[in-house]
Amino acid sequence: MRKVMIAGVGMTPFSIYKDRSTRSLAEEAIQEAVQDAGSSVHDIGAVYFGNAVGGLITGQESIRGQVAVRNTGLLDRGIPVFNIENACASGSTAVNLAWLAVASGQHEAVLAVGAEKMSHENKAITFKALESAVDQESLDEIKAQIGSAGAGQTQSMFMDIYSAMTRKYMEKSGATPEDFARIAVKSHQAGKLNPKAQFRHEVTLEEVMQSRLISDPIRLLMCSPIGDGAAALLICSEEYAKKTGADAVQIAASVVVSGSADGSLEPATVRAVRQAYEMAGVGPNDLDVVEVHDAAAPAEIIEYEELGLCGEGEGPAFLASGATMIGGRVPVNPSGGLISKGHPVGATGCAQLVELADQLRGRCGGRQKQGAKVALAENGGGFLGPDPAATTITILTR
Amino acid sequence: MRKVMIAGVGMTPFSIYKDRSTRSLAEEAIQEAVQDAGSSVHDIGAVYFGNAVGGLITGQESIRGQVAVRNTGLLDRGIPVFNIENACASGSTAVNLAWLAVASGQHEAVLAVGAEKMSHENKAITFKALESAVDQESLDEIKAQIGSAGAGQTQSMFMDIYSAMTRKYMEKSGATPEDFARIAVKSHQAGKLNPKAQFRHEVTLEEVMQSRLISDPIRLLMCSPIGDGAAALLICSEEYAKKTGADAVQIAASVVVSGSADGSLEPATVRAVRQAYEMAGVGPNDLDVVEVHDAAAPAEIIEYEELGLCGEGEGPAFLASGATMIGGRVPVNPSGGLISKGHPVGATGCAQLVELADQLRGRCGGRQKQGAKVALAENGGGFLGPDPAATTITILTR
Repeated sequence: MRKVMIAGVGMTPFSIYKDRSTRSLAEEAIQEAVQDAGSSVHDIGAVYFGNAVGGLITGQESIRGQVAVRNTGLLDRGIPVFNIENACASGSTAVNLAWLAVASGQHEAVLAVGAEKMSHENKAITFKALESAVDQESLDEIKAQIGSAGAGQTQSMFMDIYSAMTRKYMEKSGATPEDFARIAVKSHQAGKLNPKAQFRHEVTLEEVMQSRLISDPIRLLMCSPIGDGAAALLICSEEYAKKTGADAVQIAASVVVSGSADGSLEPATVRAVRQAYEMAGVGPNDLDVVEVHDAAAPAEIIEYEELGLCGEGEGPAFLASGATMIGGRVPVNPSGGLISKGHPVGATGCAQLVELADQLRGRCGGRQKQGAKVALAENGGGFLGPDPAATTITILTR
Repeated sequence: MRKVMIAGVGMTPFSIYKDRSTRSLAEEAIQEAVQDAGSSVHDIGAVYFGNAVGGLITGQESIRGQVAVRNTGLLDRGIPVFNIENACASGSTAVNLAWLAVASGQHEAVLAVGAEKMSHENKAITFKALESAVDQESLDEIKAQIGSAGAGQTQSMFMDIYSAMTRKYMEKSGATPEDFARIAVKSHQAGKLNPKAQFRHEVTLEEVMQSRLISDPIRLLMCSPIGDGAAALLICSEEYAKKTGADAVQIAASVVVSGSADGSLEPATVRAVRQAYEMAGVGPNDLDVVEVHDAAAPAEIIEYEELGLCGEGEGPAFLASGATMIGGRVPVNPSGGLISKGHPVGATGCAQLVELADQLRGRCGGRQKQGAKVALAENGGGFLGPDPAATTITILTR
């Protein structure tokens, strides 16, 4: 396998776009990525299009990618479009396939795109669509697993799933609701510095703790919002990046794993990151900047441990140390994360890598990690019960 | 890129399965493919799961593959599952990605699965789901392109699309409705010999011509039916196939292309097959047996020309020569094709290759092409207007 680079990135601001289609959002991200790489759509060999819930939200169940890119010029040569789905990990799963296409020598340059319209005038349709990332044949069993303290309190089954996971983690680690609130405060501090974040204002610990209880102990301001957006990455060979003169970063590892069917394996993140560290030849102490899948705030602290940034049970103390703040030793979610940057589900995996590529290229202004050379993204999707359906790890290096 | 083999195939009979889930159908196909290859699910490195309309038909919008395979043992090691969509070409698009995973050396053995529940107690939902393989933002324009003679006469927009294409072809070639009826007769003769076909009875020319007009000149018995089913292929390295002692065939070419956005390119099949012939080092005269995407009967005759089996405008005469019958020089759709074998959309691309792998291994009984060494499948999906969204060509050799 040869070296694979990200030579250009593009992203819409994440927001609620009542009057824009998935196509319109994807077009903006693609155009920006191609320009950033100094490339042309006519150089692109294939498109890997990540989207999770377009069928239920927009009615475009099939050929989502072809429809989204049809006006970009990408189809002028009839290149293949692959429509990739892996729930909230759709974007990074598309990246994994794009990575292989270049690593194997099949293509010189390809696009990975994540795009999602999540907002719907009927919010119940959005929640229903998100719930379809749970095994539909086992809904009752899954609700039983989640436990009565969480299940059924909210429209969002995933917040019930997160709250069940969180309560277990609290027992084990002694973490408190205030710890999770501190994540939300930190994320909003970062999002304020990201022009593409959905929320660009700070929140106080009191505001978080006084916001509506969604699924105990998760409160509204600890949750990622509903939103729309797209992100795109131009992924290419080293030779191609040199030819266009792009300021490129390397994809040193790209790993996709599934959860087990019965909870019998180690956590998916632990398995995936072990593979990724080996593939990239780095360890947790080498990481300069990290993006994790904080669809709910507690997940960030749990991920500190699963990624090996700190030891088991040390998540709350690690947060308290300030290491993961902007300006800390290893900033986590300097983009604002899913909570503040936003989480249009199929776009998130690509958007995390937009942030990290820009961090490695020193383009992140007030939220920049100085001299960042190694960056990691963790992206998760779906729920089989008791395990997540898919988890991906991507490591970028400079 | 190294040599890639199909070492095992599995397939449910295609039918209307009121009481079986996508999972149940996929499980049967997977188990059969793994057994046929002399393999074990624990040898499999990744799953490429093709499905087109599961979100709208079953409500499982996300993580369709993980849900389908969760009880097979495939997740015991947490291997990645890629959910792949390309409308009616979803199955063969999954094969293309599976092929690359093995060709590149990433995996020794993987599974490509196509599975689809199309039937729904409310038939309108099935037709609506199929229509979502058309660009939803351009429905009006597309209806205008199709022309008033076809549009709106039927519940199935795709039959209107096929009829518009057919009328153009008739003008150019002099083909008649009776020619298309002969395709339906031929397909049913073949399907009668295929234990896995949805329709296992013959029809007469008169029956076809007297069946209900769906979209002029297409009549009911010229249309592929609504149906459910799954097909699976164990795709692996030559070394792996030797190790298990499987009776394996080679994937000599696997090509995916998109249609153009504006009809400015050569037909997608012509472009795809040119690439595939070059990749496999064969030409149309080398083909021993072929499966084409006859979602409506006229498509088969049009494909004769686009694949180069005969010259332009010679389709009807080529059919009349008997060359494409079972027992002819190059049987086309000996499985019964989409019309008689059935067309659970996301399963079709894999099912075509089940037939061709079995043809190359001499396992097709009364419909066997003796001594077949080179086989080709054409699979198409979706409609951007005026072009199809995706077309794939796969060439198998012995």
